[in-house]
Amino acid sequence: MITFIVKGNRARTAPDFLLKDLPGSGGRIDILCRCLTSSLLLSHGIRKDVQVILCLGGEPDPPKCIRVMGDNVKHLSPDERSTAILLMKALESYRKGEEVESTPGIYISGHSFKEILEQYRERIVLLDEGGDELGSMPVEEPCFVLGDHLGFDEAEEKLLSTVKHRMRVSPLVLHGSHCIVLVLNRMDMIKERGNTERKTNR
Amino acid sequence: MITFIVKGNRARTAPDFLLKDLPGSGGRIDILCRCLTSSLLLSHGIRKDVQVILCLGGEPDPPKCIRVMGDNVKHLSPDERSTAILLMKALESYRKGEEVESTPGIYISGHSFKEILEQYRERIVLLDEGGDELGSMPVEEPCFVLGDHLGFDEAEEKLLSTVKHRMRVSPLVLHGSHCIVLVLNRMDMIKERGNTERKTNR
Repeated sequence: MITFIVKGNRARTAPDFLLKDLPGSGGRIDILCRCLTSSLLLSHGIRKDVQVILCLGGEPDPPKCIRVMGDNVKHLSPDERSTAILLMKALESYRKGEEVESTPGIYISGHSFKEILEQYRERIVLLDEGGDELGSMPVEEPCFVLGDHLGFDEAEEKLLSTVKHRMRVSPLVLHGSHCIVLVLNRMDMIKERGNTERKTNR
Repeated sequence: MITFIVKGNRARTAPDFLLKDLPGSGGRIDILCRCLTSSLLLSHGIRKDVQVILCLGGEPDPPKCIRVMGDNVKHLSPDERSTAILLMKALESYRKGEEVESTPGIYISGHSFKEILEQYRERIVLLDEGGDELGSMPVEEPCFVLGDHLGFDEAEEKLLSTVKHRMRVSPLVLHGSHCIVLVLNRMDMIKERGNTERKTNR
Protein backbone atom coordinates (compact mmCIF):
# COMPACT_ATOMS: atom_id res chain seq x y z
CA MET A 1 0.00 0.00 0.00
CA ILE A 2 1.29 3.42 -1.02
CA THR A 3 -0.12 6.39 0.90
CA PHE A 4 -0.32 10.04 -0.12
CA ILE A 5 -1.15 12.59 2.59
CA VAL A 6 -2.10 16.01 1.22
CA LYS A 7 -2.61 19.07 3.38
CA GLY A 8 -5.15 21.66 2.27
CA ASN A 9 -4.44 24.50 4.68
CA ARG A 10 -7.59 26.48 3.91
CA ALA A 11 -9.70 23.77 2.27
CA ARG A 12 -13.32 24.37 3.22
CA THR A 13 -14.60 22.02 5.94
CA ALA A 14 -18.33 22.37 5.21
CA PRO A 15 -20.22 21.14 2.12
CA ASP A 16 -21.22 24.69 1.20
CA PHE A 17 -18.51 25.70 -1.30
CA LEU A 18 -19.44 26.58 -4.86
CA LEU A 19 -18.68 24.02 -7.56
CA LYS A 20 -18.20 26.93 -9.97
CA ASP A 21 -15.56 28.46 -7.70
CA LEU A 22 -13.49 25.66 -6.16
CA PRO A 23 -10.29 27.73 -5.79
CA GLY A 24 -12.02 30.66 -4.03
CA SER A 25 -15.04 29.37 -2.13
CA GLY A 26 -13.44 25.95 -1.62
CA GLY A 27 -10.18 27.35 -0.21
CA ARG A 28 -8.15 25.77 -3.01
CA ILE A 29 -9.97 22.47 -2.67
CA ASP A 30 -9.27 22.13 -6.43
CA ILE A 31 -5.68 21.24 -5.44
CA LEU A 32 -6.95 18.31 -3.34
CA CYS A 33 -9.16 17.14 -6.23
CA ARG A 34 -6.21 17.02 -8.61
CA CYS A 35 -3.98 15.27 -6.08
CA LEU A 36 -6.69 12.66 -5.56
CA THR A 37 -7.14 11.83 -9.24
CA SER A 38 -3.38 11.89 -9.90
CA SER A 39 -2.91 9.35 -7.10
CA LEU A 40 -5.59 6.89 -8.11
CA LEU A 41 -6.42 7.04 -11.81
CA LEU A 42 -4.80 5.06 -14.58
CA SER A 43 -6.00 5.48 -18.17
CA HIS A 44 -8.41 2.58 -17.79
CA GLY A 45 -8.52 1.73 -14.15
CA ILE A 46 -7.74 2.56 -10.56
CA ARG A 47 -4.50 2.04 -8.64
CA LYS A 48 -5.78 -0.46 -6.08
CA ASP A 49 -2.61 -0.32 -3.98
CA VAL A 50 -2.88 3.42 -3.26
CA GLN A 51 -4.73 5.30 -0.54
CA VAL A 52 -5.02 9.08 -0.34
CA ILE A 53 -5.58 11.05 2.85
CA LEU A 54 -6.75 14.63 2.35
CA CYS A 55 -6.38 16.87 5.40
CA LEU A 56 -8.71 19.88 5.28
CA GLY A 57 -7.79 22.75 7.57
CA GLY A 58 -10.07 25.59 6.44
CA GLU A 59 -13.17 27.21 7.93
CA PRO A 60 -15.74 26.69 9.36
CA ASP A 61 -15.05 23.46 11.29
CA PRO A 62 -11.47 22.18 10.97
CA PRO A 63 -9.95 19.67 11.00
CA LYS A 64 -11.52 17.18 8.61
CA CYS A 65 -9.82 14.17 7.11
CA ILE A 66 -11.05 12.46 3.93
CA ARG A 67 -9.50 9.08 3.20
CA VAL A 68 -9.90 7.45 -0.23
CA MET A 69 -9.01 3.80 -0.77
CA GLY A 70 -8.01 2.73 -4.28
CA ASP A 71 -9.13 -0.85 -3.74
CA ASN A 72 -12.80 -0.03 -3.29
CA VAL A 73 -13.43 3.57 -4.38
CA LYS A 74 -16.31 4.07 -6.83
CA HIS A 75 -17.58 6.97 -8.97
CA LEU A 76 -14.15 8.62 -9.27
CA SER A 77 -13.76 10.42 -12.62
CA PRO A 78 -10.78 12.40 -13.89
CA ASP A 79 -12.53 15.78 -14.02
CA GLU A 80 -12.20 18.19 -11.11
CA ARG A 81 -15.87 19.04 -10.65
CA SER A 82 -17.10 15.47 -10.19
CA THR A 83 -14.24 14.83 -7.77
CA ALA A 84 -15.23 17.93 -5.79
CA ILE A 85 -18.79 16.58 -5.59
CA LEU A 86 -17.44 13.40 -3.96
CA LEU A 87 -15.57 15.51 -1.38
CA MET A 88 -18.73 17.55 -0.77
CA LYS A 89 -20.70 14.35 -0.15
CA ALA A 90 -18.03 13.26 2.32
CA LEU A 91 -18.30 16.58 4.20
CA GLU A 92 -22.11 16.17 4.28
CA SER A 93 -21.70 12.74 5.89
CA TYR A 94 -19.36 13.85 8.70
CA ARG A 95 -20.26 12.67 12.20
CA LYS A 96 -18.19 13.71 15.21
CA GLY A 97 -16.08 11.03 16.85
CA GLU A 98 -16.24 8.36 14.14
CA GLU A 99 -15.04 7.60 10.63
CA VAL A 100 -17.99 7.45 8.23
CA GLU A 101 -18.02 5.93 4.71
CA SER A 102 -19.77 8.58 2.59
CA THR A 103 -19.63 6.84 -0.81
CA PRO A 104 -17.87 3.53 -1.62
CA GLY A 105 -14.20 3.77 -0.64
CA ILE A 106 -14.39 7.35 0.70
CA TYR A 107 -14.25 7.93 4.46
CA ILE A 108 -14.47 11.09 6.54
CA SER A 109 -13.31 11.72 10.10
CA GLY A 110 -12.16 14.59 12.32
CA HIS A 111 -8.48 13.62 12.44
CA SER A 112 -6.00 16.46 12.15
CA PHE A 113 -3.03 16.62 9.78
CA LYS A 114 -0.72 16.34 12.81
CA GLU A 115 -2.49 13.18 14.05
CA ILE A 116 -2.20 11.62 10.61
CA LEU A 117 1.51 12.51 10.40
CA GLU A 118 2.11 10.88 13.80
CA GLN A 119 0.25 7.77 12.69
CA TYR A 120 2.32 7.32 9.51
CA ARG A 121 5.56 8.74 10.91
CA GLU A 122 7.73 5.63 10.40
CA ARG A 123 6.75 5.24 6.77
CA ILE A 124 7.14 8.81 5.55
CA VAL A 125 9.32 9.53 2.53
CA LEU A 126 9.68 13.26 1.97
CA LEU A 127 9.86 14.81 -1.47
CA ASP A 128 12.90 17.03 -1.34
CA GLU A 129 14.96 18.69 -4.06
CA GLY A 130 18.06 17.87 -2.01
CA GLY A 131 17.11 14.19 -1.62
CA ASP A 132 18.28 11.19 -3.61
CA GLU A 133 16.96 9.88 -6.89
CA LEU A 134 15.92 6.61 -5.33
CA GLY A 135 16.57 3.42 -7.28
CA SER A 136 14.64 1.43 -4.66
CA MET A 137 12.10 2.32 -1.99
CA PRO A 138 13.61 2.66 1.51
CA VAL A 139 10.40 1.59 3.28
CA GLU A 140 8.02 -1.20 2.34
CA GLU A 141 4.77 0.79 2.35
CA PRO A 142 5.89 4.35 1.76
CA CYS A 143 3.83 7.37 2.69
CA PHE A 144 4.40 10.65 0.85
CA VAL A 145 3.40 13.98 2.38
CA LEU A 146 2.49 16.99 0.25
CA GLY A 147 1.48 20.51 1.10
CA ASP A 148 -0.65 22.89 -0.94
CA HIS A 149 0.44 26.39 -2.05
CA LEU A 150 0.80 27.41 1.64
CA GLY A 151 3.04 24.52 2.67
CA PHE A 152 3.45 23.50 6.32
CA ASP A 153 3.53 25.44 9.60
CA GLU A 154 6.48 25.59 11.96
CA ALA A 155 5.49 22.63 14.18
CA GLU A 156 4.81 20.46 11.12
CA GLU A 157 8.11 21.46 9.52
CA LYS A 158 9.85 20.47 12.75
CA LEU A 159 8.18 17.06 12.80
CA LEU A 160 8.94 16.52 9.11
CA SER A 161 12.58 17.60 9.57
CA THR A 162 13.17 14.40 11.57
CA VAL A 163 12.12 12.19 8.61
CA LYS A 164 15.04 10.06 7.44
CA HIS A 165 14.03 9.19 3.90
CA ARG A 166 14.10 11.89 1.23
CA MET A 167 13.36 11.41 -2.43
CA ARG A 168 14.00 13.74 -5.32
CA VAL A 169 11.82 13.56 -8.40
CA SER A 170 12.56 16.82 -10.22
CA PRO A 171 15.09 19.65 -10.36
CA LEU A 172 12.13 22.07 -10.46
CA VAL A 173 9.41 22.95 -7.96
CA LEU A 174 6.19 21.45 -9.30
CA HIS A 175 2.52 21.30 -8.37
CA GLY A 176 1.67 18.58 -5.84
CA SER A 177 -0.47 16.61 -8.29
CA HIS A 178 2.44 16.55 -10.77
CA CYS A 179 4.82 15.37 -8.02
CA ILE A 180 2.41 12.50 -7.31
CA VAL A 181 2.51 11.43 -10.97
CA LEU A 182 6.32 11.39 -10.80
CA VAL A 183 6.48 9.46 -7.51
CA LEU A 184 4.12 6.77 -8.82
CA ASN A 185 6.10 6.56 -12.04
CA ARG A 186 9.34 6.01 -10.09
CA MET A 187 7.62 3.24 -8.13
CA ASP A 188 6.19 1.67 -11.31
CA MET A 189 9.69 1.65 -12.83
CA ILE A 190 11.28 0.19 -9.67
CA LYS A 191 8.59 -2.51 -9.55
CA GLU A 192 9.07 -3.33 -13.23
CA ARG A 193 12.84 -3.59 -12.87
CA GLY A 194 12.30 -5.89 -9.87
CA ASN A 195 10.00 -8.10 -11.93
CA THR A 196 12.48 -8.20 -14.82
CA GLU A 197 15.36 -9.08 -12.50
CA ARG A 198 13.35 -11.85 -10.86
CA LYS A 199 12.47 -13.29 -14.25
CA THR A 200 16.12 -13.10 -15.37
CA ASN A 201 17.28 -14.87 -12.20
CA ARG A 202 15.02 -17.88 -12.67
CA MET B 1 10.82 24.87 -27.90
CA ILE B 2 8.94 21.72 -26.85
CA THR B 3 5.56 21.13 -28.51
CA PHE B 4 2.64 19.04 -27.33
CA ILE B 5 -0.13 18.29 -29.83
CA VAL B 6 -3.28 16.92 -28.24
CA LYS B 7 -6.23 15.57 -30.20
CA GLY B 8 -9.72 15.97 -28.76
CA ASN B 9 -11.76 13.80 -31.10
CA ARG B 10 -15.15 15.07 -29.95
CA ALA B 11 -14.10 18.32 -28.27
CA ARG B 12 -16.83 20.89 -28.86
CA THR B 13 -15.98 23.44 -31.56
CA ALA B 14 -18.42 26.15 -30.47
CA PRO B 15 -18.30 28.27 -27.29
CA ASP B 16 -21.63 26.88 -26.10
CA PHE B 17 -20.59 24.01 -23.84
CA LEU B 18 -21.55 24.03 -20.16
CA LEU B 19 -18.81 24.85 -17.67
CA LYS B 20 -20.63 22.63 -15.19
CA ASP B 21 -20.46 19.70 -17.60
CA LEU B 22 -17.14 19.82 -19.45
CA PRO B 23 -16.90 16.04 -20.01
CA GLY B 24 -20.43 15.73 -21.46
CA SER B 25 -21.38 18.98 -23.17
CA GLY B 26 -17.73 19.81 -23.96
CA GLY B 27 -17.03 16.43 -25.61
CA ARG B 28 -14.30 15.63 -23.04
CA ILE B 29 -12.80 19.10 -23.38
CA ASP B 30 -11.77 18.57 -19.72
CA ILE B 31 -9.00 16.30 -21.07
CA LEU B 32 -7.62 19.18 -23.17
CA CYS B 33 -7.75 21.53 -20.16
CA ARG B 34 -5.69 19.13 -18.04
CA CYS B 35 -3.19 18.52 -20.84
CA LEU B 36 -2.77 22.28 -21.22
CA THR B 37 -2.05 22.98 -17.56
CA SER B 38 0.21 19.92 -17.23
CA SER B 39 2.26 21.20 -20.18
CA LEU B 40 2.70 24.77 -19.03
CA LEU B 41 2.42 25.17 -15.27
CA LEU B 42 5.22 24.96 -12.74
CA SER B 43 4.47 25.50 -9.06
CA HIS B 44 5.30 29.19 -9.35
CA GLY B 45 5.59 29.97 -13.00
CA ILE B 46 5.08 28.99 -16.59
CA ARG B 47 7.26 26.81 -18.82
CA LYS B 48 8.24 29.46 -21.35
CA ASP B 49 9.85 26.94 -23.72
CA VAL B 50 6.65 24.94 -24.26
CA GLN B 51 3.81 25.39 -26.71
CA VAL B 52 0.60 23.36 -26.73
CA ILE B 53 -1.58 22.75 -29.76
CA LEU B 54 -5.08 21.51 -29.01
CA CYS B 55 -6.92 20.00 -31.98
CA LEU B 56 -10.69 20.02 -31.51
CA GLY B 57 -12.63 17.66 -33.74
CA GLY B 58 -16.15 17.70 -32.32
CA GLU B 59 -19.43 19.26 -33.43
CA PRO B 60 -20.68 21.70 -34.65
CA ASP B 61 -17.87 23.18 -36.79
CA PRO B 62 -14.68 21.06 -36.86
CA PRO B 63 -11.77 21.39 -37.12
CA LYS B 64 -10.53 24.04 -34.68
CA CYS B 65 -6.96 24.43 -33.50
CA ILE B 66 -6.06 26.30 -30.30
CA ARG B 67 -2.38 27.07 -29.83
CA VAL B 68 -1.03 28.22 -26.48
CA MET B 69 2.46 29.69 -26.16
CA GLY B 70 4.22 29.40 -22.80
CA ASP B 71 6.36 32.45 -23.41
CA ASN B 72 3.47 34.91 -23.49
CA VAL B 73 0.32 33.18 -22.21
CA LYS B 74 -1.57 35.06 -19.49
CA HIS B 75 -4.45 34.24 -17.11
CA LEU B 76 -3.70 30.49 -17.03
CA SER B 77 -4.59 28.95 -13.67
CA PRO B 78 -4.27 25.33 -12.60
CA ASP B 79 -7.99 24.67 -12.16
CA GLU B 80 -9.98 23.08 -14.96
CA ARG B 81 -12.90 25.50 -15.06
CA SER B 82 -10.84 28.66 -15.57
CA THR B 83 -8.83 26.88 -18.26
CA ALA B 84 -12.07 25.88 -20.00
CA ILE B 85 -13.15 29.54 -19.94
CA LEU B 86 -9.95 30.47 -21.83
CA LEU B 87 -10.74 27.82 -24.47
CA MET B 88 -14.30 29.11 -24.70
CA LYS B 89 -13.00 32.66 -25.29
CA ALA B 90 -10.74 31.30 -28.04
CA LEU B 91 -13.72 29.60 -29.73
CA GLU B 92 -15.68 32.87 -29.49
CA SER B 93 -12.84 34.71 -31.29
CA TYR B 94 -12.57 32.29 -34.23
CA ARG B 95 -12.48 33.87 -37.70
CA LYS B 96 -12.34 31.74 -40.82
CA GLY B 97 -9.08 31.73 -42.75
CA GLU B 98 -6.81 33.36 -40.18
CA GLU B 99 -5.18 32.71 -36.81
CA VAL B 100 -6.61 35.05 -34.15
CA GLU B 101 -5.12 35.82 -30.73
CA SER B 102 -8.08 35.52 -28.35
CA THR B 103 -6.32 36.30 -25.05
CA PRO B 104 -2.57 36.88 -24.56
CA GLY B 105 -0.64 33.85 -25.83
CA ILE B 106 -3.72 31.90 -27.00
CA TYR B 107 -4.41 31.61 -30.74
CA ILE B 108 -7.25 29.96 -32.65
CA SER B 109 -7.38 28.82 -36.27
CA GLY B 110 -9.15 26.29 -38.44
CA HIS B 111 -6.20 23.94 -38.94
CA SER B 112 -6.96 20.24 -38.75
CA PHE B 113 -5.09 17.68 -36.67
CA LYS B 114 -3.75 16.14 -39.87
CA GLU B 115 -2.41 19.50 -41.10
CA ILE B 116 -0.69 20.06 -37.76
CA LEU B 117 0.83 16.56 -37.85
CA GLU B 118 2.21 17.22 -41.34
CA GLN B 119 3.66 20.53 -40.20
CA TYR B 120 5.54 19.01 -37.25
CA ARG B 121 6.23 15.63 -38.86
CA GLU B 122 10.04 15.76 -38.71
CA ARG B 123 10.10 16.61 -35.02
CA ILE B 124 7.58 14.10 -33.68
CA VAL B 125 8.58 11.81 -30.84
CA LEU B 126 5.89 9.23 -30.16
CA LEU B 127 5.07 8.00 -26.69
CA ASP B 128 5.11 4.26 -26.98
CA GLU B 129 5.26 1.51 -24.38
CA GLY B 130 7.57 -0.39 -26.72
CA GLY B 131 9.92 2.59 -27.19
CA ASP B 132 13.17 3.38 -25.44
CA GLU B 133 13.71 5.10 -22.12
CA LEU B 134 15.58 7.95 -23.73
CA GLY B 135 18.68 9.29 -21.99
CA SER B 136 18.85 12.13 -24.50
CA MET B 137 16.40 13.73 -26.92
CA PRO B 138 16.71 12.47 -30.52
CA VAL B 139 15.48 15.78 -32.02
CA GLU B 140 16.35 19.31 -31.00
CA GLU B 141 12.83 20.69 -30.64
CA PRO B 142 10.72 17.62 -30.00
CA CYS B 143 7.01 17.48 -30.61
CA PHE B 144 4.89 14.97 -28.68
CA VAL B 145 1.52 13.81 -29.96
CA LEU B 146 -1.22 12.61 -27.63
CA GLY B 147 -4.73 11.35 -28.24
CA ASP B 148 -7.70 11.50 -25.92
CA HIS B 149 -9.72 8.48 -24.76
CA LEU B 150 -10.67 7.73 -28.39
CA GLY B 151 -7.11 7.77 -29.77
CA PHE B 152 -6.39 8.20 -33.47
CA ASP B 153 -8.19 7.12 -36.66
CA GLU B 154 -6.74 4.77 -39.27
CA ALA B 155 -5.17 7.46 -41.52
CA GLU B 156 -3.59 9.16 -38.51
CA GLU B 157 -2.26 5.88 -37.15
CA LYS B 158 -0.72 5.22 -40.57
CA LEU B 159 1.00 8.60 -40.62
CA LEU B 160 2.20 8.17 -37.05
CA SER B 161 3.48 4.65 -37.79
CA THR B 162 6.21 6.20 -39.96
CA VAL B 163 7.60 8.23 -37.02
CA LYS B 164 11.15 7.15 -36.20
CA HIS B 165 11.54 8.31 -32.63
CA ARG B 166 9.69 6.53 -29.88
CA MET B 167 9.94 7.22 -26.20
CA ARG B 168 8.75 5.17 -23.27
CA VAL B 169 7.85 6.87 -20.01
CA SER B 170 5.86 4.25 -18.12
CA PRO B 171 5.15 0.52 -18.08
CA LEU B 172 1.45 1.39 -17.61
CA VAL B 173 -1.12 3.14 -19.81
CA LEU B 174 -1.72 6.56 -18.25
CA HIS B 175 -3.88 9.61 -18.86
CA GLY B 176 -2.46 12.05 -21.43
CA SER B 177 -1.94 14.83 -18.88
CA HIS B 178 0.06 12.43 -16.69
CA CYS B 179 2.18 11.37 -19.68
CA ILE B 180 2.96 15.05 -20.30
CA VAL B 181 4.20 15.47 -16.72
CA LEU B 182 6.49 12.47 -17.23
CA VAL B 183 7.83 13.65 -20.60
CA LEU B 184 8.68 17.08 -19.22
CA ASN B 185 10.32 15.51 -16.19
CA ARG B 186 12.52 13.34 -18.44
CA MET B 187 13.53 16.45 -20.36
CA ASP B 188 14.20 18.40 -17.14
CA MET B 189 16.44 15.58 -15.93
CA ILE B 190 18.27 15.33 -19.28
CA LYS B 191 18.81 19.10 -19.28
CA GLU B 192 20.07 19.07 -15.70
CA ARG B 193 22.50 16.22 -16.40
CA GLY B 194 23.74 18.16 -19.43
CA ASN B 195 24.32 21.25 -17.28
CA THR B 196 26.12 19.20 -14.63
CA GLU B 197 28.34 17.55 -17.23
CA ARG B 198 29.20 20.90 -18.80
CA LYS B 199 30.11 22.29 -15.38
CA THR B 200 32.27 19.23 -14.61
CA ASN B 201 34.07 19.54 -17.94
CA ARG B 202 35.08 23.16 -17.38
